[in-house]
Amino acid sequence: MAALAGLGVLGAGRHLWKLPVRLSAGLQGCGPRRGYIAGSAERSPTFGLLFDIDGVLVRGHRVIPAALEAFSKLVNSQGQLRVPVVFVTNAGNILQHNKAQELSELLRCKVDPDQVILSHSPMKLFLQYHSKQMLVSGQGPLVENARALGFQNVVTIDELRLAFPELDMVDLQRRPKTMRLRSDFPAIEGVLLLGEPVRWETNLQLIMDVLLSNGHPGTGLATAPYPHLPVLASNMDLLWMAEAKMPRFGHGTFLLCLETIYRKITGNELKYEGLMGKPSILTYQYAEDVIRQQAERRGWATPIRKLYAIGDNPMSDVYGANLFHQYLQMANRGEEEQQTGGQQKQRPSATQSCASILVCTGIYSSQDPGSQVPPPGRGELPFHGHRDFSFSPGLLEASHIVHDVNEAVQLVFHQEGWA
Amino acid sequence: MAALAGLGVLGAGRHLWKLPVRLSAGLQGCGPRRGYIAGSAERSPTFGLLFDIDGVLVRGHRVIPAALEAFSKLVNSQGQLRVPVVFVTNAGNILQHNKAQELSELLRCKVDPDQVILSHSPMKLFLQYHSKQMLVSGQGPLVENARALGFQNVVTIDELRLAFPELDMVDLQRRPKTMRLRSDFPAIEGVLLLGEPVRWETNLQLIMDVLLSNGHPGTGLATAPYPHLPVLASNMDLLWMAEAKMPRFGHGTFLLCLETIYRKITGNELKYEGLMGKPSILTYQYAEDVIRQQAERRGWATPIRKLYAIGDNPMSDVYGANLFHQYLQMANRGEEEQQTGGQQKQRPSATQSCASILVCTGIYSSQDPGSQVPPPGRGELPFHGHRDFSFSPGLLEASHIVHDVNEAVQLVFHQEGWA
Repeated sequence: MAALAGLGVLGAGRHLWKLPVRLSAGLQGCGPRRGYIAGSAERSPTFGLLFDIDGVLVRGHRVIPAALEAFSKLVNSQGQLRVPVVFVTNAGNILQHNKAQELSELLRCKVDPDQVILSHSPMKLFLQYHSKQMLVSGQGPLVENARALGFQNVVTIDELRLAFPELDMVDLQRRPKTMRLRSDFPAIEGVLLLGEPVRWETNLQLIMDVLLSNGHPGTGLATAPYPHLPVLASNMDLLWMAEAKMPRFGHGTFLLCLETIYRKITGNELKYEGLMGKPSILTYQYAEDVIRQQAERRGWATPIRKLYAIGDNPMSDVYGANLFHQYLQMANRGEEEQQTGGQQKQRPSATQSCASILVCTGIYSSQDPGSQVPPPGRGELPFHGHRDFSFSPGLLEASHIVHDVNEAVQLVFHQEGWA
Repeated sequence: MAALAGLGVLGAGRHLWKLPVRLSAGLQGCGPRRGYIAGSAERSPTFGLLFDIDGVLVRGHRVIPAALEAFSKLVNSQGQLRVPVVFVTNAGNILQHNKAQELSELLRCKVDPDQVILSHSPMKLFLQYHSKQMLVSGQGPLVENARALGFQNVVTIDELRLAFPELDMVDLQRRPKTMRLRSDFPAIEGVLLLGEPVRWETNLQLIMDVLLSNGHPGTGLATAPYPHLPVLASNMDLLWMAEAKMPRFGHGTFLLCLETIYRKITGNELKYEGLMGKPSILTYQYAEDVIRQQAERRGWATPIRKLYAIGDNPMSDVYGANLFHQYLQMANRGEEEQQTGGQQKQRPSATQSCASILVCTGIYSSQDPGSQVPPPGRGELPFHGHRDFSFSPGLLEASHIVHDVNEAVQLVFHQEGWA
């Protein structure tokens, strides 16, 4: 990390750029499970595809027609995918298998749950936290998702609020009449931020209480401990496109509030032990592993050398793919240098590059480039990326810009010399 | 404002330091209404008292015994106050007359609603906004308070949310099934932030939508207008003492989130047309006027020259009183200079000074000075004041520190030569 940061190319700042374990140690597998050997007429692919979902394949719950065309090209006569494919979304308040089922129906192509990478999926590999007592914040199938990631001891914000009723005081109608103090509540050892919660005031307050009390909310410490308890977070999108004309707050806005409150109250910066979801390279490393596993199960002998990431959001999809590309370039150079002596870096994968393809059917089309003028009084557009990622114009430029995902697939086939 | 800022003494930065109108133009009056002439044995007071409530007179709904002793000294044999008194609180999600009634019962002394100054009370004097269509955020008797302040056309966040269902998307369970677009909703012309709301995500989102759309939420503007619509806010307390050992988020935390989100999304700073509540001098100017009116109604001929502000919170009570004292010193010097020529400054009041008295029965006692060590890695304590107020150690030093409000009143009587 220090070496790469010193080269000043990554632009990613302080982030953990290496997954704690490789996927082969953890994941069940993905894609068709029969180990079917590709037909002899079809060559083994040397590339894999990463698809963003919203704005690329679907809008809300409706499929984008170009996606149907694209996937009709991607499956063979047996209905199987011809190349390894994963679906990478920053959503997290959903279940993998539900999204896989929805995609299967919409795309008319069998999608396995393991092919769906949610914002928090890489947390499966953060084994050192799986047995800790974790406070989890988010919405929807929250506890189910936490357990599916491997966390065995989770406490929700609501459970904490009910155990310590004197902590959540903003809502006048929910203020307790009596203050029973729980003395037997297990100490919290870490915080999991899996997606936008409801009642941000309650979540922000209780998370702060846990961090400032070192896991014993309700007690008062004279000095806030620093470093604080570990915080793992997924999905740093400041905004996302829903039905409204202007984008809506994403989990990144919640994180912004938490980071700002923490700094205002303590004077120190909140630090993440893991921050994933595009554009974090943790997500791309995870996706790369899933792609590789898929290729192995399909019996494709040739290693995957190139990834194409297709998305609609420059700040998460393009930036992320380009950042990962930089990482691959650096890692490969480092590996060549190290082969002369010393330990080999842990890189069983052969991936050499990652290209970013931007479509115009989602966020990017809504940002009319002609109207992208800086606000009054400022010389440049505000940077909507997360605090831990620096503004780097090159990283926001896509390798290719196409109209839709069908054109994207055609471009990839053309680049790879496929029919 | 520029002249005072240039002197560098105020330390308050960019704030409107002059109320738009004097109170005599607007307020009904305060204190006992009979115009009773004080008994001839009692001299006319030349000083007034400003009492903070929580942590000084009460803790939650229980009176602090020292307050009973203090008020037994403050009333004469007819049960009337011997000096002008106001109660200045940063709370806002309550009604003036409810708080006055509660104080009357607790202190065993008749308290008129007009003697109770809430965080937003000075908004009564912002006449230029009273007929505008204002979006109001807060809790409790929100609309009633807004109307009592003089605002005739208010829209609540909930009304806006129901009119534009596609805007509030965080809560998965509240997402609308259909998106009926209202085209006849009146344009919003300003924003009123009266106190901590519930569901900060909803409030933050809709307030941002109104500011970015120039009052027409649901539409999309290519560039966010700047300056934005007027924003009036009251109560900037970052934290407040409730029953929990550590202080709870106040409205200042909500404002911090809004300011940060606005800056992140637009690149510009959110600016308040009015930001009141201690330590803003708007609140002290308003309190000074109420004190003066009270003295007039009681028939006290001698002008009020000195104010004593008794509180438990250094950042709001002490800082505010000291800031007002600085303002009085500057204003009086300016007036002397102007008397030789030109227009007289609009200062019918004769108040010359304001002293801050800090008690130890509230926030201040909970901050054990011995444990006030800077957090690890920092050389000084973090500044919890609002963004628009600079850290100024002198302003945080109280004129006097006493054990409780009874000692405070004794000290004042001693200073003023009263029995």
